[in-house]
Amino acid sequence: MAIIPFNKPYISGNEFKYISESVESGKISGDGIFTKKCHTFFEETYEFKKVLLTTSCTDALEMAAILIDIKPGDEVIMPSYTFVSTANAFALRGAKIVFADSRKDHPGMDENSLEALITSKTKAIVPVHYAGVACDMDIIMDIADRHNLFVVEDAAQAIDSYYKGKPLGGIGHLAAFSFHETKNIISGEGGMLVINDESFAKRAEIIREKGTNRSSFFRGEVDKYGWVDLGSSFLPSDMIAAFLYSQLENLQKIQSTRKKIWDKYDASFRGVLDKNKGVRLPVIPDFATNNAHMYYLTCASPEERNTLLSHLKGKGILAVFHYLSLHKSRFFEGKYNGLNLTETDKYTDCLVRLPLFFELDLNKQKYIIDSIHEFYS
Amino acid sequence: MAIIPFNKPYISGNEFKYISESVESGKISGDGIFTKKCHTFFEETYEFKKVLLTTSCTDALEMAAILIDIKPGDEVIMPSYTFVSTANAFALRGAKIVFADSRKDHPGMDENSLEALITSKTKAIVPVHYAGVACDMDIIMDIADRHNLFVVEDAAQAIDSYYKGKPLGGIGHLAAFSFHETKNIISGEGGMLVINDESFAKRAEIIREKGTNRSSFFRGEVDKYGWVDLGSSFLPSDMIAAFLYSQLENLQKIQSTRKKIWDKYDASFRGVLDKNKGVRLPVIPDFATNNAHMYYLTCASPEERNTLLSHLKGKGILAVFHYLSLHKSRFFEGKYNGLNLTETDKYTDCLVRLPLFFELDLNKQKYIIDSIHEFYS
Ligand SMILES: Cc1ncc(COP(=O)(O)O)c(/C=N/[C@@H]2[C@H](O)[C@@H](O)[C@@H](OP(=O)(O)OP(=O)(O)OC[C@H]3O[C@@H](n4cc(C)c(=O)[nH]c4=O)C[C@@H]3O)O[C@@H]2C)c1O
Ligand SMILES: Cc1ncc(COP(=O)(O)O)c(/C=N/[C@@H]2[C@H](O)[C@@H](O)[C@@H](OP(=O)(O)OP(=O)(O)OC[C@H]3O[C@@H](n4cc(C)c(=O)[nH]c4=O)C[C@@H]3O)O[C@@H]2C)c1O
Repeated sequence: MAIIPFNKPYISGNEFKYISESVESGKISGDGIFTKKCHTFFEETYEFKKVLLTTSCTDALEMAAILIDIKPGDEVIMPSYTFVSTANAFALRGAKIVFADSRKDHPGMDENSLEALITSKTKAIVPVHYAGVACDMDIIMDIADRHNLFVVEDAAQAIDSYYKGKPLGGIGHLAAFSFHETKNIISGEGGMLVINDESFAKRAEIIREKGTNRSSFFRGEVDKYGWVDLGSSFLPSDMIAAFLYSQLENLQKIQSTRKKIWDKYDASFRGVLDKNKGVRLPVIPDFATNNAHMYYLTCASPEERNTLLSHLKGKGILAVFHYLSLHKSRFFEGKYNGLNLTETDKYTDCLVRLPLFFELDLNKQKYIIDSIHEFYS
Repeated sequence: MAIIPFNKPYISGNEFKYISESVESGKISGDGIFTKKCHTFFEETYEFKKVLLTTSCTDALEMAAILIDIKPGDEVIMPSYTFVSTANAFALRGAKIVFADSRKDHPGMDENSLEALITSKTKAIVPVHYAGVACDMDIIMDIADRHNLFVVEDAAQAIDSYYKGKPLGGIGHLAAFSFHETKNIISGEGGMLVINDESFAKRAEIIREKGTNRSSFFRGEVDKYGWVDLGSSFLPSDMIAAFLYSQLENLQKIQSTRKKIWDKYDASFRGVLDKNKGVRLPVIPDFATNNAHMYYLTCASPEERNTLLSHLKGKGILAVFHYLSLHKSRFFEGKYNGLNLTETDKYTDCLVRLPLFFELDLNKQKYIIDSIHEFYS
């Protein structure tokens, strides 16, 4: 019995061709011809004001933290149910992380719990669009406006998804995307910073270029470049951008195939597992679209989740749990404890992600679906 | 007349083959098969205790800064004549950068000036092996030992170079290498952290994996991974490692070709420009080897340097200056000024790097050499 993996990176066709073109161009460090093509793609397709490819979403979040000038003692509000990087990017700058609980119907953070978490030290809110499904951004932007806070969207999983017709990543002051191989559109490792508030544009370019005005230099605007700010090397090799560009050319195909797989899971479970078995299925609110990044079930109990994972593993199906409540992590707990985030813990303990990748064939998917129904029969 | 570039990335042959193998392996995120091959290569060839590929040398330096727990107020001593990243990596953690002057005979820092710069807040010394030529590491390690300081070697340019028989990067507590396309061995963007003090090994793995024990998890040592420390995403895609591995297989060939080019420059100038024209030629001390990373001249005056650069440019030869004194940078100057580092300024104002790359052919090199003699005739 062949194992069905949880994920399989999809190669869309022109990746190698473009990598060789990048090499032939004579410039395989950052900001070569394919980096520019990717930038143009995003700026045109989603009307993002300015984008900058980075080596990872983690690094894009770090750029955001530097850009909004996070200092020791500043507070940053984000969900506890997220990847470690969302928190680490701000913790690295000395921020105190303030965790919000998840929504009852969705792992995204409860927008209505945020206002109570704001203090005079709060500097930013970081909504995570879990599974590519939007947080209620009108509520979040309104809170941010009233309290003078920055909003950094963690759109790691949210490519090609929308909130009330606006592309995710295009709403907060800044946003970060991931092209890690576990995402819809990939480049092995990779990420992108989106700059919606143009006042950040110039400094973003400098921070990304090791704190130098090297971009101005290569545009011929200055005759030497030097140290002008904090910064790091956030540029991916142009070969990574070449790989990514081939994926972007196939975005619609990739998205529609993933949506078919997602819809098939949903049609097979909805009205059955949720009605009769107490399993929660994904909720896509009216204000949000579904980019088919992930199909997940929320089991009735931790024991049920763990038995389901074992059951599937026994059948050669690699379904997986996901984040672990960050407020209970070894790093965080000693620091500021006493938090009680019950919805977060529920997702930590009960959520199961099912295999979902471009090349998952219908027979295999049927086998996964049948195995789940068998478990619940 | 075809322009002679300052640098041209060399493709050694198996880069594309290995990139496809990496893709076929099904894992193009970090730490795939080629990352492991590169790690083994370095650990076997140079007997480094532990190495970890990173997305850049800048990032390896940042890992070092986190590992030695740099905190706001700590002081870090380094040359002012270095790339911005050497300083930024520590400035990002809040360190005060204390700049040392260069040696009279070499752009590397003056080992004998260090002790006077040490205070009770000094935490680390960061020697930069300029042009791949070793600093006098016995002196530096002795000072560090006596004052209980860490030594982080910035070996960005120092691959395959030695100090008294020991490979550079293998002497300090930690070291950072670069595989940026301007280096001898390249991967577009890329770097590596070397861990010589094994007490850093476990934490290094965690910091590189976003502050999680994900490496332990994938080795099957724990059944979940979580947030245990500060960290970032320092892993390069395995495709970058695949490219690098092909280069490493050709290291000897690349090095010997570069050395021939270097030697030819040197033989043409030594005894002429230095004797009669007041031009300083590179000095390789007895304790150091030459890895032919760079051939540079130090002109007698800034005017001479700038006229030489223009003269060569007029002949289609892209020779370039190098670092700008960091102590005079816009970022640094406002903070702690009043430094007077005359040797540093001399290299900033008078140094010229000549084209030096694998595919520089003999005729072109002769043309460059002739053009320089013509300038000085
Ligand atoms: C010790 C040390 N420690 C750490 C790292 C981090 O390594 P990573 O990159 O892996 O993180 C390095 C890195 N070397 C970097 C980069 O590798 C790479 O970007 C490249 O930069 P350039 O592409 O700009 O290249 P160039 O061809 O060297 O110069 C081109 C023109 O630029 C003008 N110039 C140049 C400089 C330097 C400067 O300050 N100001 C300036 O006006 C001179 C020319 O006309 O070279 C840099 C030196 C290092 O050296
Ligand atoms: C919102 C948000 N914001 C920011 C970023 C930064 O993006 P960048 O990567 O671009 O910087 C992300 C990133 N996603 C990351 C990484 O992309 C990628 O590494 C990958 O991690 P894995 O390869 O581990 O993959 P997996 O297949 O998701 O799980 C595999 C097994 O691991 C177990 N597991 C899993 C987790 C998560 C955890 O905490 N603890 C844990 O024990 C569950 C399984 O059995 O997935 C992560 C979630 C994100 O989501």
